[in-house]
Amino acid sequence: MKYRFIRILNSVEDVIKALKTKISIKPHVLKVNVVKSVGYFAAENIYASFDYPPYHRSAVDGFAVRAEDVSSASQFNPAVLKLIGFMHTNDTPEKYIVKKGECVEVTTGAPLPLGANAIVMAEYAKKLSNSEVEIMKPVAPWDNVSLKGEDVRKGQLIVRKGEVIKPWHVGLLATLNIVEIKVFDRLKASVLGVGDELIPLGSKIEPGKIVSSTMYLVKAFLSELGVNVVYTEIVPDEVEVISLKVREALSKSDVVFTTGGTSVGLRDFTVEAVKKLNPDFFLHGVAIKPGKPMAVATVKGKPVFMLSGYPVATFTELIAVFEPIYYSIYGSKIPPKPTIKGRLVRRVYVEPGIRGYVRVKVFKKNNEVLIEPLMVTGSGILSTLIEGNGLLIVPENVEGYDEGDEVEVILTNPIGE
Amino acid sequence: MKYRFIRILNSVEDVIKALKTKISIKPHVLKVNVVKSVGYFAAENIYASFDYPPYHRSAVDGFAVRAEDVSSASQFNPAVLKLIGFMHTNDTPEKYIVKKGECVEVTTGAPLPLGANAIVMAEYAKKLSNSEVEIMKPVAPWDNVSLKGEDVRKGQLIVRKGEVIKPWHVGLLATLNIVEIKVFDRLKASVLGVGDELIPLGSKIEPGKIVSSTMYLVKAFLSELGVNVVYTEIVPDEVEVISLKVREALSKSDVVFTTGGTSVGLRDFTVEAVKKLNPDFFLHGVAIKPGKPMAVATVKGKPVFMLSGYPVATFTELIAVFEPIYYSIYGSKIPPKPTIKGRLVRRVYVEPGIRGYVRVKVFKKNNEVLIEPLMVTGSGILSTLIEGNGLLIVPENVEGYDEGDEVEVILTNPIGE
Repeated sequence: MKYRFIRILNSVEDVIKALKTKISIKPHVLKVNVVKSVGYFAAENIYASFDYPPYHRSAVDGFAVRAEDVSSASQFNPAVLKLIGFMHTNDTPEKYIVKKGECVEVTTGAPLPLGANAIVMAEYAKKLSNSEVEIMKPVAPWDNVSLKGEDVRKGQLIVRKGEVIKPWHVGLLATLNIVEIKVFDRLKASVLGVGDELIPLGSKIEPGKIVSSTMYLVKAFLSELGVNVVYTEIVPDEVEVISLKVREALSKSDVVFTTGGTSVGLRDFTVEAVKKLNPDFFLHGVAIKPGKPMAVATVKGKPVFMLSGYPVATFTELIAVFEPIYYSIYGSKIPPKPTIKGRLVRRVYVEPGIRGYVRVKVFKKNNEVLIEPLMVTGSGILSTLIEGNGLLIVPENVEGYDEGDEVEVILTNPIGE
Repeated sequence: MKYRFIRILNSVEDVIKALKTKISIKPHVLKVNVVKSVGYFAAENIYASFDYPPYHRSAVDGFAVRAEDVSSASQFNPAVLKLIGFMHTNDTPEKYIVKKGECVEVTTGAPLPLGANAIVMAEYAKKLSNSEVEIMKPVAPWDNVSLKGEDVRKGQLIVRKGEVIKPWHVGLLATLNIVEIKVFDRLKASVLGVGDELIPLGSKIEPGKIVSSTMYLVKAFLSELGVNVVYTEIVPDEVEVISLKVREALSKSDVVFTTGGTSVGLRDFTVEAVKKLNPDFFLHGVAIKPGKPMAVATVKGKPVFMLSGYPVATFTELIAVFEPIYYSIYGSKIPPKPTIKGRLVRRVYVEPGIRGYVRVKVFKKNNEVLIEPLMVTGSGILSTLIEGNGLLIVPENVEGYDEGDEVEVILTNPIGE
């Protein structure tokens, strides 16, 4: 009999674990300006080079005082202090020395003058003249003062290697006057669309031909993730040609993706083709649905992901297997995804031992969150991803859920009203 | 008394509602290639131009049959059919006409030949020779067939105006051979850092000078959101100069941001400066914490966001007020954010009537999710955004939460183990 079946489906966990040990690519290190570093993975631990704030600062507008001078001040019995000057944000602490019975007017962010140890807020003070101020409320030492090093201590770890740079990192790095940091360069990827029926986007559609849409879906998915897609090509169902093209793709990029030619079919062209390249590691069949026929390999440490030709199966394969690998290559964690809990309006069944990715529609009715699994007859139904706004992941040890069960789903789009 | 206080704080909701009516900028419409459209907001409704699949297709590898010919087939009493040919993915339905007692071998994705109405999976068939096949299981009409138009019907809405283009849209648009779509161009923004103490990143830090880090934080935040920052500049605490620079920024961009100079201080330089530009609308003081001194204005329909000089207050102002405005400009909804529920390890207090944005640290202990509010003495404590991995929003009608209360927080970074 000429049909080959995948007898053993490998669990997602096993596939990821195996790939992590077999992949040996190292992303290049790049120096970028901090202002342009958002979204990159840090390639180094970055530590604070000095205390921030660099000196005690006023956290409010008001008057810098010695707390002990105003300890019994009240609205009816104000303390009267001598006003010796004004501190602006660009002054230095040494500009004034506050002695017993004296005070300095300060603006928010201005240094605390020497001798003072607290700020009285402007609301609780009254200027009698340019040299006299009434204080109507006591303050404790260090009230309304941002202490030196309160925000960041010299030597403190502020960016961890493998972390994705966020806007607040940029804020803190700029605060510390760090201009350039080391980040990992984006991975380079190739995407090959395998199939005699495939034509490029924008071609004239002849009978028997369809646009290689899954290839473009993969490219878009990768771009959104931050991968640099350097090479795409449509390849016919010929083992020798696929082999050649995968080899070429491997020479041009860190990661190679193929779509199509992996199903348990008359011939698994892509699988045969990649096997000819003497892979260090090869695995066919992953316990996910849709997406079972996925194959993965490494060739000289570079991963090859052989994805389905069907867009929804491909999408599942990318989320289930590639995404965790992607973050692990950078020593990073998968960022949290938006989720929501709701009640299933229809039962969901997935064979035991398989991790199911069920597209759902999340909506609100009478203030309750309801979750409708979208009916599918095949893994090609891309429109369910557009009609739907969520993804229910059914773990391997769960056969499914009943109507009315509360489940948590990943939200891919806002909820309709 | 020369101090001015903000007596009335405007609710976030009122500020957003007012801004939405006053802002009259319209993002430009741009034609982009579908493959590069991910992340843009659609500027048009896009409908399917043809049915997809364009003809009935096989969803599996196997044999195209007339269901009525195999209705009594079984393992012990197989139906024997005449094999008249093979259908590949790039063939057309007209290649064969299946008559009574005949079948055609098909690969997944191949058209269903004329006359046939179901596919028997390869597992349930046995080729006796090149012209004879045994079928060992009956099929119902249309079993294992992807019907014409099953995925998308001609005329179906596939992208809604205002929606953010996702990879699966690209997949479906490519499937329909749509090459270019209309999207809204990115907004152009200017960010001005106001303060005599401010210097650009990378300058020598003299006493009394600090890097204009909040300006860079805003720039990074906007870039991550998809806004094109075309102009940044540091401006001294001089009303005339600020006025001039805001006017210049307005001429260069759709939206203007200033950081600093809005606090209830000795002088609200920025506020005074923007008021001189004859704004159509002006509002000072928003009921958020941190971020109360925020001011907003529109000048000839273009919004000016006067943000705090303090990074964390600024960050809150951007999330609370700018983000909703940003999505509304495109007629879009705010995308869902990752959240998690957990138990507070310490009480949180926010004055009634104020919406609180409390930075928190989310962690797991004995399999329980715990949420620790980070102690802050001022809105300048940027390191709490780095130490923390979440944000607890305390609504206006809630004064806070007790230790042990279950709360839901926005997750900004993965949870540590």
